[in-house]
Amino acid sequence: MKISFLLNWYLNPYHAPIIVAKEMGFYSERNIDLAIIEPTNPSDVTHLIGQGDIPLGLKAMVHCYAARGRGFKVKSIGTLLDEPPTGLIALKHKNINHITDIKGKRIGYVGEFGKVMVDNLASEAGLTPNDYTTVRTGMDAAHALINDKVDAAIGLSCFQQVEIQEQGFESTMLRIDEAAHLGCCCFCSILFITHEKFIKTHPDLLSEFMRATLAGLQVTREDPEKALSCLFAVKPGLDTPLYKKIFYHTLPYFSRDLLNVERDWRKVGKYAQKLGIIAQENDFKECFTHAFAPVDLCPV
Amino acid sequence: MKISFLLNWYLNPYHAPIIVAKEMGFYSERNIDLAIIEPTNPSDVTHLIGQGDIPLGLKAMVHCYAARGRGFKVKSIGTLLDEPPTGLIALKHKNINHITDIKGKRIGYVGEFGKVMVDNLASEAGLTPNDYTTVRTGMDAAHALINDKVDAAIGLSCFQQVEIQEQGFESTMLRIDEAAHLGCCCFCSILFITHEKFIKTHPDLLSEFMRATLAGLQVTREDPEKALSCLFAVKPGLDTPLYKKIFYHTLPYFSRDLLNVERDWRKVGKYAQKLGIIAQENDFKECFTHAFAPVDLCPV
Repeated sequence: MKISFLLNWYLNPYHAPIIVAKEMGFYSERNIDLAIIEPTNPSDVTHLIGQGDIPLGLKAMVHCYAARGRGFKVKSIGTLLDEPPTGLIALKHKNINHITDIKGKRIGYVGEFGKVMVDNLASEAGLTPNDYTTVRTGMDAAHALINDKVDAAIGLSCFQQVEIQEQGFESTMLRIDEAAHLGCCCFCSILFITHEKFIKTHPDLLSEFMRATLAGLQVTREDPEKALSCLFAVKPGLDTPLYKKIFYHTLPYFSRDLLNVERDWRKVGKYAQKLGIIAQENDFKECFTHAFAPVDLCPV
Repeated sequence: MKISFLLNWYLNPYHAPIIVAKEMGFYSERNIDLAIIEPTNPSDVTHLIGQGDIPLGLKAMVHCYAARGRGFKVKSIGTLLDEPPTGLIALKHKNINHITDIKGKRIGYVGEFGKVMVDNLASEAGLTPNDYTTVRTGMDAAHALINDKVDAAIGLSCFQQVEIQEQGFESTMLRIDEAAHLGCCCFCSILFITHEKFIKTHPDLLSEFMRATLAGLQVTREDPEKALSCLFAVKPGLDTPLYKKIFYHTLPYFSRDLLNVERDWRKVGKYAQKLGIIAQENDFKECFTHAFAPVDLCPV
């Protein structure tokens, strides 16, 4: 069966487990013909999956709450990246080390909820939205920083910060988890999401999908060079020192078992409520399920 | 206070979190002067910590059970490496893909319990100890394999297998967790261990030690190049392509929170009993404690 799978970002090294599973035939041997597609605007992802056009994809935890807050019945069936460090990245000479340092600056963000997070932090630090300018950079944060289109931008330490470093610039990161006293970047954990309808109609397919993806994850962790060769086969443009570096920097953030982390859902639920992304504290257990997790592959 | 810390192996890239914590002053700012020492024989570690000579060190989970089985009151206070893939490594042309393939071969192992594991697998596959020869290679497995002193040897995919690959040889790994139907390599998870007496006399020091080590772990994961520079400062001989590669291959196996994993202790307890390393099923909860885990650093 051909299944569309919508990435959360352009195809990049942190998608390796999925690419490995596809290239090594782990999906096809389970009769899944995974059609991997990329968004041009990451903000489209939960909408497209939420309205049932595309059955399966990836998105960060805070966006899953936001989608539920809008009435989309998206549900997470697992975790790809666990707590990748996220924050406001700036070139070092901009001296953006505290949230109040954004006064008078141009702040880049990807989609609307990045802006919500920045506005919330700024407001808690006594700033108003007039004190700084927000600029939607989309997937182009590193380029916007290097070309001085923004003074700081939301990004990942294992991705955009590596992009900047690789071009010879020193940078800083003002961690959002620290500024917001979250204790970890679980709000930015990247999850496998689907629609509740698809769960009802295709439960076996979802179980098989997760088993195949776990096999891809295991190869990625145990044989990183093999994973890189799969990535390069699918997208030769990734065969550069930059993307290799991003790959190795991402390795420690891959989930080990693809499981949803209940603690993180609870924590991010409170945060999403504080951000006004959801009206009241939703039952966080509606947002994810362990039903398709390949837990039996590692019995107690 | 100066505290001896006995590594489980010669100082190598998988010790990075500890080296980073030391080099960046995370221990010293908590008044811990960590004297990091290396064994020449890894089998000495639990004995030295078990008899109370050295207060703190590292050792794999199965060896902690073995030490308790011998009456040593060692206890784990946390995890450094989570389930590093472990198995019988062989050069590819030796065709060692199943445990019965060791018939007539020379099998290298590090310490006595590696031999116990091989003998157990062989016996379950219908072989007797006369069907193969075991050779104690100590820390020299990769060299012994390349120089044809043994046909296969126990090692880690992120260490000895990388050593072999880096010298241009193709290799295979017969995974012990798969052959023994364990589901994961938790028996080989590398733990922070101490003595029960030291826990009673120095609980605060152990808490501070774990907090400092977690800070070192976080730098290691978020800024791998910084971690490498700390390693090279302490041991310039590690500044080679081989050790850099081992470092990046090890990154996905560092524990994320340094916590002991109760499920793994339960599983390895049964395995240790099956291996005859412990007489009966010990109360596995005596083997570890969460008391010094820096869990409050990431509140729910």
